[in-house]
Amino acid sequence: MAGNTFGKLFTLTTFGESHGEALGGIIDGCPAGLLIDLAFIQSELDRRRPGQSHIVTQRKESDTVEFLSGVFEGKTMGTPIGFIVRNENQKSKDYEHNIDAYRPSHADYTYDAKYGMRDHRGGGRSSARETVSRVVAGAIAKLILKQHGITINAYSSQVGDIKLLKDYHDLDLSKTDANIIRCPDALLADTMIQKIEQVRKAGDTIGGVISCVIKGTPVGLGEPVFDKLHADIGKAMLSINAVKGFEYGSGFEGVKMNGSQHNDLFVFENGGIKTKTNLSGGIQGGISNGEDIYFRVAFKPVATIMQKQNTVNSKGEVVEMTGKGRHDPCVLPRAVPVVEAMAALVLVDHILRNNSVLKKK
Amino acid sequence: MAGNTFGKLFTLTTFGESHGEALGGIIDGCPAGLLIDLAFIQSELDRRRPGQSHIVTQRKESDTVEFLSGVFEGKTMGTPIGFIVRNENQKSKDYEHNIDAYRPSHADYTYDAKYGMRDHRGGGRSSARETVSRVVAGAIAKLILKQHGITINAYSSQVGDIKLLKDYHDLDLSKTDANIIRCPDALLADTMIQKIEQVRKAGDTIGGVISCVIKGTPVGLGEPVFDKLHADIGKAMLSINAVKGFEYGSGFEGVKMNGSQHNDLFVFENGGIKTKTNLSGGIQGGISNGEDIYFRVAFKPVATIMQKQNTVNSKGEVVEMTGKGRHDPCVLPRAVPVVEAMAALVLVDHILRNNSVLKKK
Amino acid sequence: MAGNTFGKLFTLTTFGESHGEALGGIIDGCPAGLLIDLAFIQSELDRRRPGQSHIVTQRKESDTVEFLSGVFEGKTMGTPIGFIVRNENQKSKDYEHNIDAYRPSHADYTYDAKYGMRDHRGGGRSSARETVSRVVAGAIAKLILKQHGITINAYSSQVGDIKLLKDYHDLDLSKTDANIIRCPDALLADTMIQKIEQVRKAGDTIGGVISCVIKGTPVGLGEPVFDKLHADIGKAMLSINAVKGFEYGSGFEGVKMNGSQHNDLFVFENGGIKTKTNLSGGIQGGISNGEDIYFRVAFKPVATIMQKQNTVNSKGEVVEMTGKGRHDPCVLPRAVPVVEAMAALVLVDHILRNNSVLKKK
Amino acid sequence: MAGNTFGKLFTLTTFGESHGEALGGIIDGCPAGLLIDLAFIQSELDRRRPGQSHIVTQRKESDTVEFLSGVFEGKTMGTPIGFIVRNENQKSKDYEHNIDAYRPSHADYTYDAKYGMRDHRGGGRSSARETVSRVVAGAIAKLILKQHGITINAYSSQVGDIKLLKDYHDLDLSKTDANIIRCPDALLADTMIQKIEQVRKAGDTIGGVISCVIKGTPVGLGEPVFDKLHADIGKAMLSINAVKGFEYGSGFEGVKMNGSQHNDLFVFENGGIKTKTNLSGGIQGGISNGEDIYFRVAFKPVATIMQKQNTVNSKGEVVEMTGKGRHDPCVLPRAVPVVEAMAALVLVDHILRNNSVLKKK
Repeated sequence: MAGNTFGKLFTLTTFGESHGEALGGIIDGCPAGLLIDLAFIQSELDRRRPGQSHIVTQRKESDTVEFLSGVFEGKTMGTPIGFIVRNENQKSKDYEHNIDAYRPSHADYTYDAKYGMRDHRGGGRSSARETVSRVVAGAIAKLILKQHGITINAYSSQVGDIKLLKDYHDLDLSKTDANIIRCPDALLADTMIQKIEQVRKAGDTIGGVISCVIKGTPVGLGEPVFDKLHADIGKAMLSINAVKGFEYGSGFEGVKMNGSQHNDLFVFENGGIKTKTNLSGGIQGGISNGEDIYFRVAFKPVATIMQKQNTVNSKGEVVEMTGKGRHDPCVLPRAVPVVEAMAALVLVDHILRNNSVLKKK
Repeated sequence: MAGNTFGKLFTLTTFGESHGEALGGIIDGCPAGLLIDLAFIQSELDRRRPGQSHIVTQRKESDTVEFLSGVFEGKTMGTPIGFIVRNENQKSKDYEHNIDAYRPSHADYTYDAKYGMRDHRGGGRSSARETVSRVVAGAIAKLILKQHGITINAYSSQVGDIKLLKDYHDLDLSKTDANIIRCPDALLADTMIQKIEQVRKAGDTIGGVISCVIKGTPVGLGEPVFDKLHADIGKAMLSINAVKGFEYGSGFEGVKMNGSQHNDLFVFENGGIKTKTNLSGGIQGGISNGEDIYFRVAFKPVATIMQKQNTVNSKGEVVEMTGKGRHDPCVLPRAVPVVEAMAALVLVDHILRNNSVLKKK
Repeated sequence: MAGNTFGKLFTLTTFGESHGEALGGIIDGCPAGLLIDLAFIQSELDRRRPGQSHIVTQRKESDTVEFLSGVFEGKTMGTPIGFIVRNENQKSKDYEHNIDAYRPSHADYTYDAKYGMRDHRGGGRSSARETVSRVVAGAIAKLILKQHGITINAYSSQVGDIKLLKDYHDLDLSKTDANIIRCPDALLADTMIQKIEQVRKAGDTIGGVISCVIKGTPVGLGEPVFDKLHADIGKAMLSINAVKGFEYGSGFEGVKMNGSQHNDLFVFENGGIKTKTNLSGGIQGGISNGEDIYFRVAFKPVATIMQKQNTVNSKGEVVEMTGKGRHDPCVLPRAVPVVEAMAALVLVDHILRNNSVLKKK
Repeated sequence: MAGNTFGKLFTLTTFGESHGEALGGIIDGCPAGLLIDLAFIQSELDRRRPGQSHIVTQRKESDTVEFLSGVFEGKTMGTPIGFIVRNENQKSKDYEHNIDAYRPSHADYTYDAKYGMRDHRGGGRSSARETVSRVVAGAIAKLILKQHGITINAYSSQVGDIKLLKDYHDLDLSKTDANIIRCPDALLADTMIQKIEQVRKAGDTIGGVISCVIKGTPVGLGEPVFDKLHADIGKAMLSINAVKGFEYGSGFEGVKMNGSQHNDLFVFENGGIKTKTNLSGGIQGGISNGEDIYFRVAFKPVATIMQKQNTVNSKGEVVEMTGKGRHDPCVLPRAVPVVEAMAALVLVDHILRNNSVLKKK
């Protein structure tokens, strides 16, 4: 059973390889009557687009989305939304060295073993280029969330060992896109950028962490016991290329605490039930409690480096290879919109799921 | 859309509340002809059972599983396996104080808000008692994995700030169950146990981390792009009560590395393709590569504490409450078999999923 | 991928064999706050129960349902509803002749071939006894439909070649249960019963047709293009044991008509849009239009007959067999509540599905 | 929850409206290494294409499929296959009369009521033009079935009251495409064609029946208890536009028989277990038994007629309308490949499902 569909009620099914004709997808379950803001969708794509700055890959792609169905006179119709993004700048020749060698820490070997073949022109299906479809669908999900007053803000919070120590409450998240690393702390952003430049010059790459804050979530999203809201957010994040870890609320640090410190006491404020602290990360028992949802996502360093490495080919022979092509020294700047997109997909899916069990008067 | 089913081809659907008649579930998709080793299944339940030591809850439950279908003359038939575990020691009176007050960092408030009602006798559906059904299904999954030569070993690797620093290669995982905290390092186990005893005496609780190692996985499990093997394992772990984080392979630490350090170089050894290092954690591009899969799961401190706390009731009035009933000062000892069970469910599901696309000659 | 779950949002997963410990199921997605009318549920089970008259099997079963979860203080909680029905009157000895012979037109051979084994004590999983779980879930679905003003009435409309020619508008469907064949035309019912008695005395069986009428459906149920309302009703019916055909609205007869005769003209009546005729059967483009939904289901004659038949065993050897045990000469009387139950499951599922896409103001 | 995905393991998700930019779909779960025979796929599309004869709609469409992913060097890769078919001959003006009037027995009213809007340019999503995507996917499914030695042959067996009485054994199904109505009996085909011509001249339409025979199915396909093979085939057929009924094996006629007549006795022939007769239609207990699978599908007369009809608009006002545009007087000739395509999708899905539970040695 293949795994190219995400979500249960608001679903995205994607297709496309990095060096094929086009990528794209089908969004099914989008409510009718939603105004499709094409400029906004394109602006989200632009945040993920290659070539946007000197610290990302220089592949030239306009990443223009074409909607083929589901939208009529500017509005969704409740029917499936089909869309495509044409590949424009495939340089398959860059990958000829790659035809019969397994790039270290890439998916070449596992795809070959699983499917008995692979598209050796770049990552093929395993390329992060696939996330372009996620950003399209995520942008539509954001348009829905806007109607519900829900906002999602992701930002780079760590590059290598350069870590943003400030809590998100002490940051101005509207500043995230003010710099090319997408860190709302301008000073630290500079340090991060320098780090990436230095790494890139060395033909190397570096990992990092993206943090994300969701505000405005209503109480009640999440479906116990398996489809807890954070479990679905976690899966969404772990499905993004290069992700190695996910934590929400107090996360791994929280394990050091006692229950008496960790518990979020309920209080009654401004006519509603709130919690005094929010180590729970906005989710209790797998269901949103109305507080901010926040989480962190770990990204490994990009596997393609411009250095010589030994590897083997499909016959098991040792071969030497050096990365060619146009690659990201650090995925963070382009992954920020992808993290937001995937979070948006989960939230809309859970809004629809929660709707479905609404009691009829 | 409710979320009480886990898995796509090997599915577990569970039911039951902590203070209801019984818990149980249906396993669908179990291959026919599997010998059901009842003693093994019960031994797995015993590892999760309350009352097994002085550092876990003293609720008295035999946790005896009764199989109602799907097994004939000791073997599975390919038909759904229905099973129940009766509740024997509900003390609903312990929860009378709880009828109209929201316990801090529990799911009382969110359940009430979502469903318009809740079972106030203990956690109801949100209680970790639900995991008893996961252990039954996980034990059957382990029987299948055994036929494939796959082993899963989880262990407590951190209690509060007491952290096991040794790599799993330097541990004898067969020693995990030799002590009541289930840490394979006997010395550190003692320190952990003392910590828990101390916390319990203070009427408090403490968090921790469980590590898990899976050996013997074939190459090819995992279904890109959304149902990557680690994404499904991550969701499985995050669906367990009290979990706040998941990381696999190099995890959050790996973000500090350069690609040149992090890449796992391929080598040819003993007639097969292997990797020299394994920072990938046995999964590349979402597909198992045959190396060990290893991951870590963060558990928050148990929310029920034997101390006075302020909270509010459904009318928003401030009320004071003190935990009653029989609770775990630390979930780790009993969560170790749950982590293994959920990992086993994911692996069997992915074995069946991978089977489905096998090429016919 | 096993197939023991029905529905997408309101789901029923069943388990159990005819001669095992128990049958049962889990209903997931039932809205919270529904009053569970146990007497009504049991009365539905009684309509399906063996031994209810001399024209059905004389197996003695009380078919008492035990709810194990999901219901608290008489109301549903939004959590999964687990239930079991114990088998009380298995006479496995009746099937010893059957251990190694394939009963004609039963599932013995196909189960053996598919699973490599089978429960030879009666039909095992393939027995229509499994429908007891469907009736439990269907009864709960009916309680939900009642809140929406939707009623479902099935009745026997043909036994062998004895066919009820009256349109359902000319019948008093409240009279259906007034006789043991469940035909609302008392006179024809007598003829049908005589036919069945005669067939039974000859050690034979007979087929028939059940008709069903659903009133009060709102406009809008059904999810194009694959999950059209009639497609899901059709699948539901075809999943019932012994069913060979399904038609709705004008059905197979309608193919003889011209479009100008067949089209249902729209009119405006009593403040709403209605159709003048209803050859569409209440569904247009796969979506309910508010008119009555009506359909017919064909049941083959029961395969177990009290006559000698030649068959083969698993080695391919010819063996002679005569039916033993307690069997129905005609499935119709007991299948009427099953048809209603399956229709109810589909409707509730589609109400929830339709809810999920409701626009938020 | 929208319903635009068909299948569980071999899935087709479609998008597209009759007068939008393009139609298309994503096939997920297609095994890797399948040779894609583009000429064959196009030939299947040609069988469904408008304008192929004078008894079908004269809309001019080349119906050329463009594959965007999933195929590399002529073979499938195991990754999702995205494809589109551009609309070339939309004449939206033909539908201006239609903007605010509900065409009788079309989906205009139900779509409007369900989604709060609709694409008034032709049927939009409810148009049978959507089946173009089904034929693309069905053609790929047929390529897989060919490897398994499975053939599917559908043919027109009834137009209005002109009924083909011969059993399929007495027909040469290779002659089906020799005439424009696709009836393998040349003489009766002529009568059918005359009937359609006559109806068309009257500005009217006519219904019909398509029969289908599947040969070469292995024993074991079908997943009890809900996903019985015939239940999934039935749903597939009922999901096709204009279908009102489905029966397989003995169907509605079989209800008149006694069990002693209806039972298919097992025999041992040519080294295998076979049945003497095949009233079961190749499926027992929901699982294929290796005999021919055969079924019949009822199609209502096309709703668009070239005659004046009264209807209402969205305000409930009575309006008069006459069909414009280019329409089929009878769907049968173009529906034959659609029936085959949907049957092929079900079979491949069930082959993969059956694979998934294969026992490991």
